[in-house]
Amino acid sequence: MVLKPHGFPVSPCTARVEACLHEKTLDFDFVPVDILALENKQPSFLAKNPFGQIPAFEDGDITLFESRAITAYVAEKFKGTGYDLIRHENLKEGALVKVWIEVESQQYHPAICPIVYEFFGKPVVGCKPDQTLIDASLEKLEKVLDVYETRLSSNKYLAGDFYSLADLHHFAYTFYFMKTPWSSLIIDRPHVKAWWEDISARPASVKVAEGMNFGEVEIK
Amino acid sequence: MVLKPHGFPVSPCTARVEACLHEKTLDFDFVPVDILALENKQPSFLAKNPFGQIPAFEDGDITLFESRAITAYVAEKFKGTGYDLIRHENLKEGALVKVWIEVESQQYHPAICPIVYEFFGKPVVGCKPDQTLIDASLEKLEKVLDVYETRLSSNKYLAGDFYSLADLHHFAYTFYFMKTPWSSLIIDRPHVKAWWEDISARPASVKVAEGMNFGEVEIK
Repeated sequence: MVLKPHGFPVSPCTARVEACLHEKTLDFDFVPVDILALENKQPSFLAKNPFGQIPAFEDGDITLFESRAITAYVAEKFKGTGYDLIRHENLKEGALVKVWIEVESQQYHPAICPIVYEFFGKPVVGCKPDQTLIDASLEKLEKVLDVYETRLSSNKYLAGDFYSLADLHHFAYTFYFMKTPWSSLIIDRPHVKAWWEDISARPASVKVAEGMNFGEVEIK
Repeated sequence: MVLKPHGFPVSPCTARVEACLHEKTLDFDFVPVDILALENKQPSFLAKNPFGQIPAFEDGDITLFESRAITAYVAEKFKGTGYDLIRHENLKEGALVKVWIEVESQQYHPAICPIVYEFFGKPVVGCKPDQTLIDASLEKLEKVLDVYETRLSSNKYLAGDFYSLADLHHFAYTFYFMKTPWSSLIIDRPHVKAWWEDISARPASVKVAEGMNFGEVEIK
């Protein structure tokens, strides 16, 4: 059964799924969705994700959406293949992976997402970024990164001294954030900087980054 | 080993964890955290959750935080006890539980949380609710509920014809939302209404609701 991620390689949520598949050394057939032509709002895609958002994912007769649900599914179903992203053989480590996955989802993402979206996304659709929203989000992000700096001063990665799905979930948005004028929020925190350099240098991250050229080339 | 949730029964995120423990028929020692006295910002609590938010959770030497990480841990560790919230014996059903858990986290929660917080939380701290934010959130919530209405017209619960952690995660915020002037968003959608009546009538939900009196009694 061939795994089929549906998405747009430039999109951070699509990249999140691809990074996971690469870490698991799984073969897959990538199905491009032309979001600029609103293919994601057409009935055939809405049948896969009623919210009309990328990515979606097919594994035989199982269709999933929401990037973090897809990575959780892949990491669990293929726990014995490739890199173990969920520490499934260690209850305590697995618990901490769950905790820091949720930290990304509830603390980091709500802060970083508006910055990336306003800076890169708004100009694409001919709108001016909302600087007030960016400033408020930067303030939130700083507070989150202060906690990360302390955490990463005693643990190499977020859930412990092992790379996990929690770290992976941070990759794509942080990749774009590092191309904004505010990357010093990461660079000025030595442990966060070291962590970022480590996770972004993983072969799976490097491979996914090749398709992540939002803001660098014109999207036609 | 006695399970120890730390929290404030009135808080929806604490209630989420309690509902899960009740569904799993697990004994636990509830540790109250006086958030009005800022106990959650004291070093002893920050050692459990560096973000200083409730709930936290202890299971022997394992300390967790983030309510959805705690419920995922409990549902998985105790999969053979009480009600199976994650459909661990069925790959496809388990995958759909993951999907709808993420829908709550990424679509429903960001829409409903500001409404509940503005309506109930702001007056407690002597502030006026931000009606512009409420209105924008109501608009978002309506779109999410339109998808739910279609989904629930062909499935009794969100992930399928079985109650799961995905439904449970919706309980606490929806409980408070139903006490706002905008409950018609749920009531006017017949399948969403039937779903809400079903999930809120579960013994675990009823038990947790006993402590959820935010906005009804004065918090001293």
